[in-house]
Amino acid sequence: MYIRNEDTIYAPATVLGTGAISVIRVSGPEALAVADKVISCNRGPISEAEGYTIRFGTVSAPDGHIIDEVLVSIFRAPRSYTGENSVEISCHASSFIVSEIMSLLHAAGARAAEPGEFTQRAYLNGKMDLAQAEAVADVIASQNAAAHRVAFKQMKGGFSSELRQMRSELLELVSLMELELDFSEEEVEFADRTRLDSLLVAITDHVSRLIDSFRLGNAIKNGVPVAIVGATNTGKSTLLNALLGEDRAIVSDVHGTTRDTIEETLNIDGILFRFIDTAGLRETSEVVEQIGIKRTFKKISEASIVLGMMDLTRDIETTGQTVSDILNKVDFGSQKLMILLNKMDIWNVNKNVKILNNIVSLVENKGLNANIINTEEIIVSSSDALQDSGDNLINLLPISAKTGSGIQALRSLLASTQRDLLTDSDTTLVTNQRHVQALTDTRTSLLRVREGLASALPTDLAAQDIREAIYHIGSIVGEISTDEVLGNIFKNFCIGK
Amino acid sequence: MYIRNEDTIYAPATVLGTGAISVIRVSGPEALAVADKVISCNRGPISEAEGYTIRFGTVSAPDGHIIDEVLVSIFRAPRSYTGENSVEISCHASSFIVSEIMSLLHAAGARAAEPGEFTQRAYLNGKMDLAQAEAVADVIASQNAAAHRVAFKQMKGGFSSELRQMRSELLELVSLMELELDFSEEEVEFADRTRLDSLLVAITDHVSRLIDSFRLGNAIKNGVPVAIVGATNTGKSTLLNALLGEDRAIVSDVHGTTRDTIEETLNIDGILFRFIDTAGLRETSEVVEQIGIKRTFKKISEASIVLGMMDLTRDIETTGQTVSDILNKVDFGSQKLMILLNKMDIWNVNKNVKILNNIVSLVENKGLNANIINTEEIIVSSSDALQDSGDNLINLLPISAKTGSGIQALRSLLASTQRDLLTDSDTTLVTNQRHVQALTDTRTSLLRVREGLASALPTDLAAQDIREAIYHIGSIVGEISTDEVLGNIFKNFCIGK
Repeated sequence: MYIRNEDTIYAPATVLGTGAISVIRVSGPEALAVADKVISCNRGPISEAEGYTIRFGTVSAPDGHIIDEVLVSIFRAPRSYTGENSVEISCHASSFIVSEIMSLLHAAGARAAEPGEFTQRAYLNGKMDLAQAEAVADVIASQNAAAHRVAFKQMKGGFSSELRQMRSELLELVSLMELELDFSEEEVEFADRTRLDSLLVAITDHVSRLIDSFRLGNAIKNGVPVAIVGATNTGKSTLLNALLGEDRAIVSDVHGTTRDTIEETLNIDGILFRFIDTAGLRETSEVVEQIGIKRTFKKISEASIVLGMMDLTRDIETTGQTVSDILNKVDFGSQKLMILLNKMDIWNVNKNVKILNNIVSLVENKGLNANIINTEEIIVSSSDALQDSGDNLINLLPISAKTGSGIQALRSLLASTQRDLLTDSDTTLVTNQRHVQALTDTRTSLLRVREGLASALPTDLAAQDIREAIYHIGSIVGEISTDEVLGNIFKNFCIGK
Repeated sequence: MYIRNEDTIYAPATVLGTGAISVIRVSGPEALAVADKVISCNRGPISEAEGYTIRFGTVSAPDGHIIDEVLVSIFRAPRSYTGENSVEISCHASSFIVSEIMSLLHAAGARAAEPGEFTQRAYLNGKMDLAQAEAVADVIASQNAAAHRVAFKQMKGGFSSELRQMRSELLELVSLMELELDFSEEEVEFADRTRLDSLLVAITDHVSRLIDSFRLGNAIKNGVPVAIVGATNTGKSTLLNALLGEDRAIVSDVHGTTRDTIEETLNIDGILFRFIDTAGLRETSEVVEQIGIKRTFKKISEASIVLGMMDLTRDIETTGQTVSDILNKVDFGSQKLMILLNKMDIWNVNKNVKILNNIVSLVENKGLNANIINTEEIIVSSSDALQDSGDNLINLLPISAKTGSGIQALRSLLASTQRDLLTDSDTTLVTNQRHVQALTDTRTSLLRVREGLASALPTDLAAQDIREAIYHIGSIVGEISTDEVLGNIFKNFCIGK
């Protein structure tokens, strides 16, 4: 993206559709002059109006026909979103009117804005740093209280100020070390090695904590990833439909800025879950399709929660094999597994006792505890009671995806595992893949500094590594950035922002 | 709709989606006070701000968390859309933020607006009359220059002022007649009978012209109705797809405020066409489904243009029968017929000459002229040349809906028949079914007055008929209206308008 700040740009700021009004944004050095060419106001030219005032005006076509009567909000630099002179034109919400007004703005010398260009200008004009600018898109995309809170805090600069603090500490450190270099012949140690190391440890720990927060931050922003795994035809799709149920209307396919795929998401008790579709784990015909299985295993590894779907009308070998496959692939340190005993509406009790016992044995052979949930109970039980059961406990939940039995219990169970997402902590959470990458690079540089100092590396090499760490931290807030990085960030914005 | 003007109402004024900003409207006696409860501004309370200014403010949840930073546009009665105190809250375009802010507005004492309630208030507060208010929805729905121009003129009161003029003339007339009644014993004639009659003729003619303008007005607003008629499997759907072609992206299914069905519409050279789907005119199996045929005949009668689809690969009897059926149903006084000779890509020339000659004979037997168009020519020929051919001329156009041959020629031909829709006349066009009905009732009353006067009806009865005409005219602009009428008009508006 070639940065041309001298242009005056325009774009619709609202979505077209059957609303009452549409808003068109214009920003740039000539914004007020362009508006004057397009809109005539009885109360005098827009370019003479004060900032933070509204003018009523008329937009006419070159042949004199009135296109619309509009309200114009006037903002003068630097008191505007972009930091430039800006106007917001509020017209009737007709696609015809909006496109006519944009044609007139173009004829008056403005050009159509690129996606994110308004926010990019806000960044370039120092109205916000890069991490804040990125959070603007997250605020707009946020669909629940937790995601909104994290994004809003980042937009207001909470994350940025932590990074600035670390960066200035490292800058102070490196300048002391470089001062030392200037006096190297005199063997002066300006930087106390012990204090230096403890400072490095503290900053590295801080960076590590931020990196670790991504799992939570990402779950809040994009949804807690839940993989539904099982043999083919055990009712995985039916389960998904049952979960989405009446809420399907409020379910939306979020096009995340960092994700390429579209997945079903669902809010349960204010927590966003993202359901990952997996291929059947093992074909009943025993023809194992290696690629599909590999892909399913990869998706299991990306999930925070794994729902193992068992069809209890199948034979004991099939269900046993599926349970074993799943138990082998789940990382019980970081992932939660629930086993769903599906088709409870058509169970054969005698047969199922044996199958159930077999599943329980397999679970216990892995050193885990199996707990068969009484569906009626869980609905009334408190979430605390469930969490008390500890990490080594695998819940087995009888359900019928078809009739909906046990689905409410499953929803409660899912929500109860993620209560920590709702805790209203002021800890900073990293939600952006680019930031995690930069923080990981920062940590690598810092670890190298510490190794170097421990092995008596020359001060100038250690200083160089600290400079690298400073560079990586700075890249998050945009103290260091290239056109290419900016282009990648802003191209994912919507037009008009 | 129960009118509760004392309430303060709110609604989103923009559509939700991935835009940059959303706007929430608040209007009513407590609008500024409600805004103050929800939004805190550094520069002091919104209720103290002047009209036509903008304040920057913060919206916080009851627990103190910031929901969003917003811009608030302040409008003071009567200088607002509704004529009441109003604010427009411009926030980030997140559905979460919009719904949080609306909850807070509700908690602060406002209620969600009914569809069209803002415009209804503008009407009730005398900011616009009823015809103007109805035109607001048409302005928003207008998708091309002609429809926009007609709607905008009506919104600005062009139509209303014509009606007011007629109404005041009739009022003057009736007051003279009623004065006469008061002096009836003295046999005074205040109203000169000849002048009275010529005035009545003039007004009746004016009303008739307005009624007649509906055909054109409706075509501009809702599209020129085109029926595609033919035997089953002659390629009607393929033709529709070919016509929509690359433009399908800009084709929209307009939910007209007066129409129940959804039909495909298409802009050709700035003219909106509405394609009416018809059932096959006659099954090849000769099993005539009476209901389907009746429905098709009814749709033919509603169309301005009938496209008769002939499959020239069928036998001479089938095509002949279809042509005859169509020729019998088209009203050549008010409708245009074109015969499309489809499947030109797989014609058998020898066979087709006979079929073609048969079609031409059938056309000429009806006293019409048949003109087989050379597809290559029509693309370059001017529309004037086509119109010169007169009303009695039926064009026969060879096409292939499948390959697209002749489709461009058909588009040109369709557009050329409707050039008058583009003429930039200042004549008022009626576009609303309710208005046509009221005008028809007006005319009926006026005709009764004239008949009465001709047959020496007592003056008081004639005066009563004029009062009725005045009532019907007044109902259009809303001088006379009931809650029920208002409810029906505004319920078709979108929320937020």
